[in-house]
Amino acid sequence: MMTPEEKIIQLGLSLPPAPKPAGLYQPCVVSGNLVFLSGQISRDIAGKILEGKVGDGLSLAQGQEAAKLAALNALSIMKNTIGFSKIARIVKMTGFVQTAPDFHEIPAVLNKASELFAEVMGEPGAHARSAVGVTSLPLNAAVEIELVLELKS
Amino acid sequence: MMTPEEKIIQLGLSLPPAPKPAGLYQPCVVSGNLVFLSGQISRDIAGKILEGKVGDGLSLAQGQEAAKLAALNALSIMKNTIGFSKIARIVKMTGFVQTAPDFHEIPAVLNKASELFAEVMGEPGAHARSAVGVTSLPLNAAVEIELVLELKS
Amino acid sequence: MMTPEEKIIQLGLSLPPAPKPAGLYQPCVVSGNLVFLSGQISRDIAGKILEGKVGDGLSLAQGQEAAKLAALNALSIMKNTIGFSKIARIVKMTGFVQTAPDFHEIPAVLNKASELFAEVMGEPGAHARSAVGVTSLPLNAAVEIELVLELKS
Repeated sequence: MMTPEEKIIQLGLSLPPAPKPAGLYQPCVVSGNLVFLSGQISRDIAGKILEGKVGDGLSLAQGQEAAKLAALNALSIMKNTIGFSKIARIVKMTGFVQTAPDFHEIPAVLNKASELFAEVMGEPGAHARSAVGVTSLPLNAAVEIELVLELKS
Repeated sequence: MMTPEEKIIQLGLSLPPAPKPAGLYQPCVVSGNLVFLSGQISRDIAGKILEGKVGDGLSLAQGQEAAKLAALNALSIMKNTIGFSKIARIVKMTGFVQTAPDFHEIPAVLNKASELFAEVMGEPGAHARSAVGVTSLPLNAAVEIELVLELKS
Repeated sequence: MMTPEEKIIQLGLSLPPAPKPAGLYQPCVVSGNLVFLSGQISRDIAGKILEGKVGDGLSLAQGQEAAKLAALNALSIMKNTIGFSKIARIVKMTGFVQTAPDFHEIPAVLNKASELFAEVMGEPGAHARSAVGVTSLPLNAAVEIELVLELKS
């Protein structure tokens, strides 16, 4: 059984540095066995934001790349701020995709985030999920995801 | 005191089969005493989605019908995947309505879901709620709702 | 150390009466040590809603005023319905801003709510946060925020 850290290396992924909040709040807050992660946007390892609306300027594939970037930022918080060894599982993911009003393939966009969590974390990466298309996201990011995690007892 | 199953029959309602996720995720995840249900969309018992934007093509009444359909899918998960006898209460509902930018009667739409939970479950069906109008939902569904439930200890 | 009530007075703030839900739901629901607060909109002490879309009719400053109003309503529930002395901390805030499709300074809007929580509650007011721009909110409110709180054991 590989650890998530080993899996990240095997997959050839590079995590961005643990993202700093874009406002007056914490990257994550622990309450009992739950951890609430702040919304993570589609920002790459160099700090560049994948901007734009999916279905109006951005293709489905670009939206999927944005979902993967947002997930990598969430993984960075898990690794650098919490520690994978303390995490029992991902409980819930809420995915917000900045879309054109007539773009509805939101699940296909967010599957790239869900897939990545499953690849890196295995069964504990499986989660409940809600998926929504919104008119605007912070800094014109294409995707924002937030997570609820469960810690090991 | 009727059980929720008996109440569903008395109300003449038919639950759709427990919905399959539209992506790579679980219908619900249990963490401690809480259950996080994935977003449920306005899909009828035959699998047909009530599509469109409320206030632009769909009327308020059609939006309310969509909210009821989404609630019936959530009830199906409660019955078929969790079991009503294990559920202490609905804690929180988040309702997303696919709206025209100038349609703001979102609470009136979602009341039909809240009403249905109260009718079927009684007092344990009462919940905290947030209501939002969004530009796009998965598969062009008119309504999506997600729930947090509490299990009996 | 001032209590939140004393701090509210020191800051010259007036809390609106504990808001009544705009639909068939509860202002907040307790589950274990967590409290889920229903979405609070930008309504002032006289009951008047700060309406409109930020970036299309409303300025950034007006959006920030709306965020502060929504936060004051949440503080009113904490004071009048729960009691500050029972609250350990704010765990999570989700902020929905009714925006024009090209307005992306959503964190700057919501910082005014986060700031107010920190001013009134101190360290326990710090929280995880997600920020989203949506096409429509109930009653045409400019801002809606929801909170998850942790109670003292």
